[in-house]
Amino acid sequence: MSRIASVDVRDVRFPTSLELDGSDAVNVDPDYSASYVTVTTSDGETGYGLVFTCGRGNEIICAAMESYGALLTGRETDALLDDLGAASRLLIHDSQLRWLGPEKGVQQMACGGVLNALWDLKARRAGKPLWLLLAEMSPEELVAAVDFTHLRNALTEDEALDVLRRGAAGKAERIAELEANGYTAYTTTPGWLGYSDDKLVRLSREAVSDGFGMIKLKVGGDLEEDRHRMRLAREAVGPDIRIGIDANQRWEVGEAIEWVGALAEFEPYWIEEPTSTDDILGHADIRRGVAPVKVATGEAVANRIVFKQLLQAGAIDVMQIDSTRVAGTNENIANVLLAAKFGVPVCPHAGGVGLCELVQHFSFFDYAAVSGSMEDRAIEFVDHLHEHFTDPVRIERGRYLAPSRPGIGAEMHAASVDAWEFPGGSGWAEVGERAAVTGRSSS
Amino acid sequence: MSRIASVDVRDVRFPTSLELDGSDAVNVDPDYSASYVTVTTSDGETGYGLVFTCGRGNEIICAAMESYGALLTGRETDALLDDLGAASRLLIHDSQLRWLGPEKGVQQMACGGVLNALWDLKARRAGKPLWLLLAEMSPEELVAAVDFTHLRNALTEDEALDVLRRGAAGKAERIAELEANGYTAYTTTPGWLGYSDDKLVRLSREAVSDGFGMIKLKVGGDLEEDRHRMRLAREAVGPDIRIGIDANQRWEVGEAIEWVGALAEFEPYWIEEPTSTDDILGHADIRRGVAPVKVATGEAVANRIVFKQLLQAGAIDVMQIDSTRVAGTNENIANVLLAAKFGVPVCPHAGGVGLCELVQHFSFFDYAAVSGSMEDRAIEFVDHLHEHFTDPVRIERGRYLAPSRPGIGAEMHAASVDAWEFPGGSGWAEVGERAAVTGRSSS
Repeated sequence: MSRIASVDVRDVRFPTSLELDGSDAVNVDPDYSASYVTVTTSDGETGYGLVFTCGRGNEIICAAMESYGALLTGRETDALLDDLGAASRLLIHDSQLRWLGPEKGVQQMACGGVLNALWDLKARRAGKPLWLLLAEMSPEELVAAVDFTHLRNALTEDEALDVLRRGAAGKAERIAELEANGYTAYTTTPGWLGYSDDKLVRLSREAVSDGFGMIKLKVGGDLEEDRHRMRLAREAVGPDIRIGIDANQRWEVGEAIEWVGALAEFEPYWIEEPTSTDDILGHADIRRGVAPVKVATGEAVANRIVFKQLLQAGAIDVMQIDSTRVAGTNENIANVLLAAKFGVPVCPHAGGVGLCELVQHFSFFDYAAVSGSMEDRAIEFVDHLHEHFTDPVRIERGRYLAPSRPGIGAEMHAASVDAWEFPGGSGWAEVGERAAVTGRSSS
Repeated sequence: MSRIASVDVRDVRFPTSLELDGSDAVNVDPDYSASYVTVTTSDGETGYGLVFTCGRGNEIICAAMESYGALLTGRETDALLDDLGAASRLLIHDSQLRWLGPEKGVQQMACGGVLNALWDLKARRAGKPLWLLLAEMSPEELVAAVDFTHLRNALTEDEALDVLRRGAAGKAERIAELEANGYTAYTTTPGWLGYSDDKLVRLSREAVSDGFGMIKLKVGGDLEEDRHRMRLAREAVGPDIRIGIDANQRWEVGEAIEWVGALAEFEPYWIEEPTSTDDILGHADIRRGVAPVKVATGEAVANRIVFKQLLQAGAIDVMQIDSTRVAGTNENIANVLLAAKFGVPVCPHAGGVGLCELVQHFSFFDYAAVSGSMEDRAIEFVDHLHEHFTDPVRIERGRYLAPSRPGIGAEMHAASVDAWEFPGGSGWAEVGERAAVTGRSSS
């Protein structure tokens, strides 16, 4: 009988801070990193998961993954994979570990990474990419995978079944359409704060010629600078391309309303993370204050309970799920169901390390089997670090092509993991002294 | 010049699950534990902090404390202690570590433990217990210690100064009163779910004869059992003693309203943690649904931003700050100021390991220098594990006596730390096979 033989965790970091890729008003010098987990069965099967971080602290997620992994080791593989809802409850509601969240931050992320390695294993066994596995699960199976604890005053199991049964109509046609044409993307590649004007303009124009209908700019450092960059970007892309702006939680509530107002002449499509993503009531105030600019958030939303309230409070126009912030595929199914119930589009957050590879599956699943709509929906795309993955995203004419290989997309090349394992990998040796930016003794 | 020479972290656990002390509807088998941190300067001074956990996962807080500790090592001691607001921002807003929260869960707790060790050092240098150090700081110094980020739509620096200036009137008299008479306590000692009827009744009566005016019962396991235990407790203590009930986040929103309604005939004073503490809107609904029973929460509230919203939404009658959930003394000053601004009493959560020793300081500070009131306020007391502390709480006639020794109260006896360090301490060797309940391979 197959059992979980090991849960192996590696600390993988890339020295992206050297290039200011990924810089914004809050994340000024990220070293894009992954806490990388491999679940191996006694039969030698493997499933892969990861959690994205910004460098320092990757070791903490790794420690938490080891603690959750220990709860799985020795268990029967079939029993786990046949009921991933139970597997999720086993980890999330562990009577002692639960105190450290509950259901937030390091714990939720680490749980999600480990659970996703199980989903990867399940999808590989089925020979399907995750999105297709999910799309072909029955409404009952999907509902059984979700933890409805603390959701039921907004979404009950029965309501979720209704959503999924409605979503089943036309599913086969939509799956065929996705396999033929993929899913809309938007790109953040031009918009990092650390880029020069020339680079901003050049990358913005390239985005349009590459077929993207929307780009995104980081804002929130300096208002005059933001006005300058926003004008350059608008001139570069013309009036018909959407420009999202993203403040990475930089502002107070009133400040957000004023700042967005001062950028309104350049017609931003949405303001993303205007303030703390814990601030549900603040987002509701901001949404009222910046309309018709839309409010988007989610990459730092801790769990389904916070998303529930953002929807109940009418605080967001766009739900930006993230593939490694919450407790894995299970909780993102919950998030997609919540969005469908409230009629809010899901536009996933991506970028970082592996986030594009993972999160695309939820939009494909959403279109195939839940909302059935691609209107006002797009998956973020950033052209970073895909070369390290065995099944990298494929983008054509501003669209994600449908993932076709079995699994969730988290597997990295062994050579990449070896080279960029921190701190001992050969890549870090080459980076040499400049690697000090990530060291624990850094200030 | 004095510098931070080391930040040493130890994983200390007590096998409390063997006795079902501390058992409730969610925390069914806690091994009360502490991630214990010692900051040592190049001059040999020491400051102590800790984070309470329930056993498994203590190692994760330890890992996070080491990561934050590394940011302090080598820094000038005086510069840190002279501006603990800056020290808090240095840790909390670290550009890479921030991603792992932001400001919640493992990261916020670990940050708080390390920051509290600095506050301990500062209080020891001043020769004062923390509460008196805080009470004697100027309004400007206190405001400088607080991070107002994402608070300012509810509490600005100027409003906080106003609160503190009003609180300064009569401060000397209130300090003298606290030193003479202490502060009201309530006790949870009788109320754990794992206790027999006889033990519940006996401990409830003892609580009254010991001078407590309020006891607390855990609920949420089984309604008929709760009605039975609530009836026994009410009969044991009589009509004039308050009985708080505590569901430890067990319920959905509607379920909470129904369950509390079914206990109403026994006149519970408050319902604590009726649902997820992330659910601000849910608490607001519950408060409307269970009045005149009060709603209390806080031991798992992740940060000041969530407390802000609980107050803005009129979702709580009682704020239960916890000494090791948030980012240390700095963030608890913010919480106490928020409560004062909104006119809500602070009744701290305590118990666990060292929580009584630490949290009492905030109520003494609140009375001396902020709210100036003890009305409807009490500090939780649980009679567990105080013997391991060098300055244990002193309770007389249902009141906490004023802490008088310098520091924050987190220092443990070296022999206790050595005996109960996990997994290698001599205490764990004695517990022997039963220690398996805490082991990583536990299910």
